[in-house]
Amino acid sequence: MEIPDSHPRKLSLESRQKIVDGAMNGLLADSAMIAHGRGEAFDYLLGERTTQSASRAIVEASARLSSAANPVISVNGNTVLLAGEDAIRIAAVLGCPVEVNLYYRTPERVSGLISLLEEQRIAVSSVGPPDGFIGDWLEAVGKVRFLGIEPNFRIKGLEGPRSKCTEEGIGLADTILVPLEDGDRCEALVGLGKEVVVIDLNPLSRSSMMASVTVVDEVSRAFNGILIELLSGTSSPSEWDNMLVLEEALREISESVERIQGG
Amino acid sequence: MEIPDSHPRKLSLESRQKIVDGAMNGLLADSAMIAHGRGEAFDYLLGERTTQSASRAIVEASARLSSAANPVISVNGNTVLLAGEDAIRIAAVLGCPVEVNLYYRTPERVSGLISLLEEQRIAVSSVGPPDGFIGDWLEAVGKVRFLGIEPNFRIKGLEGPRSKCTEEGIGLADTILVPLEDGDRCEALVGLGKEVVVIDLNPLSRSSMMASVTVVDEVSRAFNGILIELLSGTSSPSEWDNMLVLEEALREISESVERIQGG
Repeated sequence: MEIPDSHPRKLSLESRQKIVDGAMNGLLADSAMIAHGRGEAFDYLLGERTTQSASRAIVEASARLSSAANPVISVNGNTVLLAGEDAIRIAAVLGCPVEVNLYYRTPERVSGLISLLEEQRIAVSSVGPPDGFIGDWLEAVGKVRFLGIEPNFRIKGLEGPRSKCTEEGIGLADTILVPLEDGDRCEALVGLGKEVVVIDLNPLSRSSMMASVTVVDEVSRAFNGILIELLSGTSSPSEWDNMLVLEEALREISESVERIQGG
Repeated sequence: MEIPDSHPRKLSLESRQKIVDGAMNGLLADSAMIAHGRGEAFDYLLGERTTQSASRAIVEASARLSSAANPVISVNGNTVLLAGEDAIRIAAVLGCPVEVNLYYRTPERVSGLISLLEEQRIAVSSVGPPDGFIGDWLEAVGKVRFLGIEPNFRIKGLEGPRSKCTEEGIGLADTILVPLEDGDRCEALVGLGKEVVVIDLNPLSRSSMMASVTVVDEVSRAFNGILIELLSGTSSPSEWDNMLVLEEALREISESVERIQGG
């Protein structure tokens, strides 16, 4: 199904197709498509653009990631499907691992997603370095570790498969970039004293509320913003009022609805 | 997975599970779960309740249905899964058919959904008549025809499988109650001079915009409201400004977001 370039919602429709295809290929949990639909609705209300408050959060997220000792990018199925290549680019710039960490974990889905990441790594290598990158891009991309196949650590405060992670990745990390996270797990990670940077289109989700820094934006746009920010030189982490940025996101939604109403 | 009665979002989580189960059973098109997720997000913003403007639309929808010569209820997979029993109750009260009409039509899904409707008919019979019903409930429920297996008619202005319908149902209907409809098909039905009553949680969808009367509400709540209204005696159809009710829905969303923001 080819979507014409002129279609005003082309990117959104392409993302939807990636999620449908991923579900058909068994890479997603049962309700992952429902979660994507919720995201679509919020993104529609945000105007399918990176808002001013999201831009502020991207700057802060980048500052925290670049000043972290052990950052990690935690990805689930939706994130790999929608923005796996962007995750690899950020990991190559930060020199950090990407951990596949699923709330509804099955060994098949973890290994399927890591296979997909390996394919994406090849694409990221062949496209070449992003603007501003200094160094050997092929080496940086080649060195990104994909973790998650053999979880050997547990997130304290959680039970069952959802608590599993790797020591090398989430276990030892001081800062975690985690799009589309579950609320319980976000809370547990924050409870362990980690910096948790969440990307979530719903400013009212429990993850959004619990995170150290929340970027209310579509994952691929947010990753792109973080990558550009990391490569243009970040500032130091600031005092950050995360509730304030969530309130701004709500105001932006409310203004967007009013604008549509007036139109 | 049992959801405790005390959970504030029990109904929403139960609905989600019905959709996931239906998808696993092959009753839904690929992107039906994504559509459900969008609905979830809008319902969340509406406060998961029938708003004042939706109540007004329910009154008007009921008036139009009860004064129609040939009403029909058009249902897709999500509607049957979420509110099939309610659809049968309304059809029993109106003495009208229920037509399974799928945008991505396959004979397997149509017959699977009609089998499910037959199971739901038994449940609706055994529960007994709703308050205010006068007559023989078992007979009324037993007489509801389920159409769609053998489409012998086409909706003018559409092409391919999505144009198929039955003459007895949508073909000859003057008024169609159609939840969760596709925008193209809604437009085509209105273009044929039919009254189209849409139920859709997204006041900005093309169906919502195209409909004669739009009820911006969750399908099961809307059906319940229409059933109560039909049984309590409806008034005559009024002059109806459908754009006004959509604007009210947007205002309700915007106020709801502001309330959350302030809280």
